[in-house]
Amino acid sequence: MKHTGLVGALLEAAGAEIGDVIEVHAGKEVRAGILMPHHDFSSPSVVTLKMPNGYNIGVRVNKDTKLKVVSKKEDRPSKGKSLPKDADKKDVAVISTGGTIASYVDYRTGAVHPAISAEELVFSVPELLDLCNIRAKVLYSILSENMRVSHWAGLAKAVAAELNSGAVGVIVPHGTDTMGYTSAALSFMLRSLTGPVICVGSQRSSDRPSSDAIMNLLAATHLCVGSDLAEVVVLMHGESSDSYCHAHRGTKVRKMHSSRRDAFKSINVDPIAKVEGANISFLSDYTRRAKGPVEVRDKIDGRASMLHFYPGFEADHFDLIAQHVRGVVVAGSGLGHVSEEIIGSIKKAVRAGVHVYVTTQCLYGSVNLNVYSTGRDMIAAGAIPLGDMLPETAYVKLMWAMGQAEDPEEIRKIMLTDIAGEFAPRRPI
Amino acid sequence: MKHTGLVGALLEAAGAEIGDVIEVHAGKEVRAGILMPHHDFSSPSVVTLKMPNGYNIGVRVNKDTKLKVVSKKEDRPSKGKSLPKDADKKDVAVISTGGTIASYVDYRTGAVHPAISAEELVFSVPELLDLCNIRAKVLYSILSENMRVSHWAGLAKAVAAELNSGAVGVIVPHGTDTMGYTSAALSFMLRSLTGPVICVGSQRSSDRPSSDAIMNLLAATHLCVGSDLAEVVVLMHGESSDSYCHAHRGTKVRKMHSSRRDAFKSINVDPIAKVEGANISFLSDYTRRAKGPVEVRDKIDGRASMLHFYPGFEADHFDLIAQHVRGVVVAGSGLGHVSEEIIGSIKKAVRAGVHVYVTTQCLYGSVNLNVYSTGRDMIAAGAIPLGDMLPETAYVKLMWAMGQAEDPEEIRKIMLTDIAGEFAPRRPI
Repeated sequence: MKHTGLVGALLEAAGAEIGDVIEVHAGKEVRAGILMPHHDFSSPSVVTLKMPNGYNIGVRVNKDTKLKVVSKKEDRPSKGKSLPKDADKKDVAVISTGGTIASYVDYRTGAVHPAISAEELVFSVPELLDLCNIRAKVLYSILSENMRVSHWAGLAKAVAAELNSGAVGVIVPHGTDTMGYTSAALSFMLRSLTGPVICVGSQRSSDRPSSDAIMNLLAATHLCVGSDLAEVVVLMHGESSDSYCHAHRGTKVRKMHSSRRDAFKSINVDPIAKVEGANISFLSDYTRRAKGPVEVRDKIDGRASMLHFYPGFEADHFDLIAQHVRGVVVAGSGLGHVSEEIIGSIKKAVRAGVHVYVTTQCLYGSVNLNVYSTGRDMIAAGAIPLGDMLPETAYVKLMWAMGQAEDPEEIRKIMLTDIAGEFAPRRPI
Repeated sequence: MKHTGLVGALLEAAGAEIGDVIEVHAGKEVRAGILMPHHDFSSPSVVTLKMPNGYNIGVRVNKDTKLKVVSKKEDRPSKGKSLPKDADKKDVAVISTGGTIASYVDYRTGAVHPAISAEELVFSVPELLDLCNIRAKVLYSILSENMRVSHWAGLAKAVAAELNSGAVGVIVPHGTDTMGYTSAALSFMLRSLTGPVICVGSQRSSDRPSSDAIMNLLAATHLCVGSDLAEVVVLMHGESSDSYCHAHRGTKVRKMHSSRRDAFKSINVDPIAKVEGANISFLSDYTRRAKGPVEVRDKIDGRASMLHFYPGFEADHFDLIAQHVRGVVVAGSGLGHVSEEIIGSIKKAVRAGVHVYVTTQCLYGSVNLNVYSTGRDMIAAGAIPLGDMLPETAYVKLMWAMGQAEDPEEIRKIMLTDIAGEFAPRRPI
């Protein structure tokens, strides 16, 4: 929105336009930043500035306030310009898929549009270009709730192509809703990684003062150029303030809060790394860069379901779904349990050739079907326990395993073999 | 198992039998406790004693060790004896439903049997009788994964009957797998509570050194006789060591670990109280004892399903289930989202008269269907967001609301009204 009233008059007198870097002299205080658009919910006597750290601040003005244009927006790189290339810098690829981070991140105009060009995404955080050359590409422009199983293979191929043509790392801006599913899929599909594959999202659109997009993108870039990590990770805020980011293993991460900036948590393991500015500290073992080339094993069979057990969950419900799929991941209660009736359904499904694997809806901890009679009956019925694997990861892995093999024994072997850290290593006590 | 070898010989010489209180003099050290059976996994030269705090310890013996019987098991209250009644003490009811806590808690014999009499359960923690008179009753003897929706009404009636006949509180030993669903159901079914209703479980059978059963039962009893709390709560360990318990509001609690003793967590709120020995500290607002009588609103309609959304969740899956039920609780991604296809299914279901309510699979945080176009489309399709209500609680509440009312508007009103703390109060910032 355009500015009106006193703010409008002051801006007009200074010749300042949205997107310009301006200085606001209010009393003794001088604040400089990029002039943001006026919002309905802002006070009419407040100017909103985007600070170099990505935060927005509001500066109250009065008739004595002085405004000065420091640089016009046209003087900065922007849409339409091509990305610079510096032979001394490493290449990092940014493959955008959509989501909040790619939809709203353009803080030069403050406009909210559903997708921006990859160049715009990069120019919105020009500090990235100090660290590396960026190869930017928009692969998808979708909200992550609309991500489909078939999108994962396309993304895996695009990632591998960038790494195999010299990028030292790949950043994947992604909607946060299903980012954990995508990171699991990439973890299984990509082999012999020569660099990190970093899924990055934001929980706040960057036209809001509290946006986390810029810090997350910067931290991801530091991880690409400043570490020997070569795994698929999710990188987001490590706490709700703008202090540091955590890189989580792609198979052990889950969105555990609907809105906090530190919504993503490593489950049953520590995060892989903490990134604070340019400082990277590793918190657990990790896989280092391979010689390559990166291999893609992207065959996946989407005919699977994930079923959460609960009291009142009807055997009919299980049977109906099991008839339509090749595999079922059960999120059982506690150690992985289901009711007697559902054990009957599992037995029927397994006899009909359906692969049934068991995880726990507790999320934390491991399944163990050897403690109680219920668990032993489930094993007798043909259900296969998956240790501490997350239900979501197990669901993705089962579809991938069914894409890789036909033989049930072969699928079982794949499911029970640790491929990308989906089983936590046993901790020393 | 019987003891053999050196331990067997020493015990025989002392005339000690399993269940007796004995003293073991090993060097300068003297340890006294209840003699436990020998386990396959114990060393043959170790005697296992149950200490008064409920822990088991292993004492290594040699040929110089002296053993002495302090009291025979027959001298202590046991099975078949009736519970004492002291006119000066308050009455607390124990209504057992089954689960680990009721199956294994008999530490006098160490035997693992599927269900014990209520008297046995009480006598296994004789300290309870120092605090109150116990009215003990076995209502169900089932593993909690076999709890059905119909069991909840029977339990609610039994609880109300005890409170309405003078019990100051009711303790409900329950399997932990589905204890959170039961606590939610009781929270909605019971009105004008005159005392606390405390669901208590254990994560370790009490023939193991680390059993949490005794401390949980004792803490629950303290809460009954030493507080004015009158809500349905889940009471379990507050941390993995035997330090204190937390009482969690019955509608805001979830089993978040498959095996830890502090598996239960309050979600989006603080626990109601911390119980450390006899000390009770309240951590949040709570409802105090009503005059009574306790009312039971136990009508419930089980024709509902809870569906977790994920990439690859097929519209067919939703449609198949929606055709068989009157209500669906969706555990959406992030702020409560589903894919475009599922929005179509929601629309169809709502048109067919199915009640569709939305929660978040993140568990922490609140749904908000006003931020993104997906959410707004879901509202237009007829889905109703449930704030920060847990998916499991929402599922139980929807069945209960459908039992209480026929009219969709009436059901909607019930669903959106805070009845038992299922919506977190807004926190001051």
